[in-house]
Amino acid sequence: MPGTFFSAEDADLLETVLKSRRDVRGNRFTQEEITDLELDKLIDAALYGPSVGFSQPWEFVIIRDPNIKSAIQEIFSQENLKAADQFQDQKQQEYLRLKLEGISEAPVNLAVFYNPMNGPVLGQTSMKEMGLYSVVCAVQNIWLMARAMNIGVGWVSILDPQKVNEILELPESRRLVAYLCVGKVTEFAELPELETLRWEKRKHKASLVFKDRYDSRFYPENS
Amino acid sequence: MPGTFFSAEDADLLETVLKSRRDVRGNRFTQEEITDLELDKLIDAALYGPSVGFSQPWEFVIIRDPNIKSAIQEIFSQENLKAADQFQDQKQQEYLRLKLEGISEAPVNLAVFYNPMNGPVLGQTSMKEMGLYSVVCAVQNIWLMARAMNIGVGWVSILDPQKVNEILELPESRRLVAYLCVGKVTEFAELPELETLRWEKRKHKASLVFKDRYDSRFYPENS
Repeated sequence: MPGTFFSAEDADLLETVLKSRRDVRGNRFTQEEITDLELDKLIDAALYGPSVGFSQPWEFVIIRDPNIKSAIQEIFSQENLKAADQFQDQKQQEYLRLKLEGISEAPVNLAVFYNPMNGPVLGQTSMKEMGLYSVVCAVQNIWLMARAMNIGVGWVSILDPQKVNEILELPESRRLVAYLCVGKVTEFAELPELETLRWEKRKHKASLVFKDRYDSRFYPENS
Repeated sequence: MPGTFFSAEDADLLETVLKSRRDVRGNRFTQEEITDLELDKLIDAALYGPSVGFSQPWEFVIIRDPNIKSAIQEIFSQENLKAADQFQDQKQQEYLRLKLEGISEAPVNLAVFYNPMNGPVLGQTSMKEMGLYSVVCAVQNIWLMARAMNIGVGWVSILDPQKVNEILELPESRRLVAYLCVGKVTEFAELPELETLRWEKRKHKASLVFKDRYDSRFYPENS
């Protein structure tokens, strides 16, 4: 068969990478620098991503300037206060105790933008959101590649995208998809932190997968 | 360091998986069955995906029923005619010659939905689209895991999501994120088909990556 053939061991290794990827926050990053060569490998991973109609609708801003990081951190703080207001009582107390970003602790921040094409895009005519989804696939590629390089990534979404655009001087047409904190880590946690803290419970696989129609389950009830 | 430590060879293998993933259409699928065990591995890959606030906002429908596939194919045909109308002259002729799905050829179709949570979601308060993005990350995990298992995946986006919901009898609150065709293949192409056919040109890396601000490039101009 033309094209690379992967062994069962290769598939197992990929599964281990998928399984051990974590969202990393400021309490886990070390001060160790991320080199331009390492960043280049992460960018390459993104560019291997699928894009609807081969539109490649992505742009990347690599941030090391502490003044820019501070300005982004300030946006986070504003948005996070508004966010806390949406939770009630005990949940609000829990929310306020969480460390949800590593903007200043991570040596590098990486902002990923959607750059819409002019004119129709093949594959994007019925689902306008497909261009954004292409950029998200590129972000997941970065996240996985980083993990395989033992580099931590944290996705900060408690931000006003418009204000990030202004600070990084992006054209108005661009749309922030992901703001990533990138750095070496003291550890990769065994489980997602929000699972360990019981913020939400893990869902049962049997409740999520159906066959042919929504009324028929793929897995036995008790699996 | 707690957590799996990956070697440089492991990172190289992941890079090869990322690089050799392709969007597979009906002209490449074989009739060979995809087993439930293989599908289970793809679902597990999805469930290792990141989700905003650990919300796990995903649901999956595995389709083998030829009648359902036919109904989906009919939706594709309707949407594809509308799509062709958006392209002009030579580009429209090229568009009409492309094979853009493998709904009936692939032994399995896999529809992936977003199931919004009730109430506020941690990390989704400023960017409402984060729940959808979590589902997209799960889709990319499926795509990569399939590639490492030498299974092809094609993402069909030329569909009316509302009509797919109706055929698969999903609750109204659910939103189609991806409709995937899944099967063994005769080959994985060296390059994306739309690149080979020069539908769009590959963008230069140097034009896509900036440092600190949008007016400053990360790579030298001529890289």
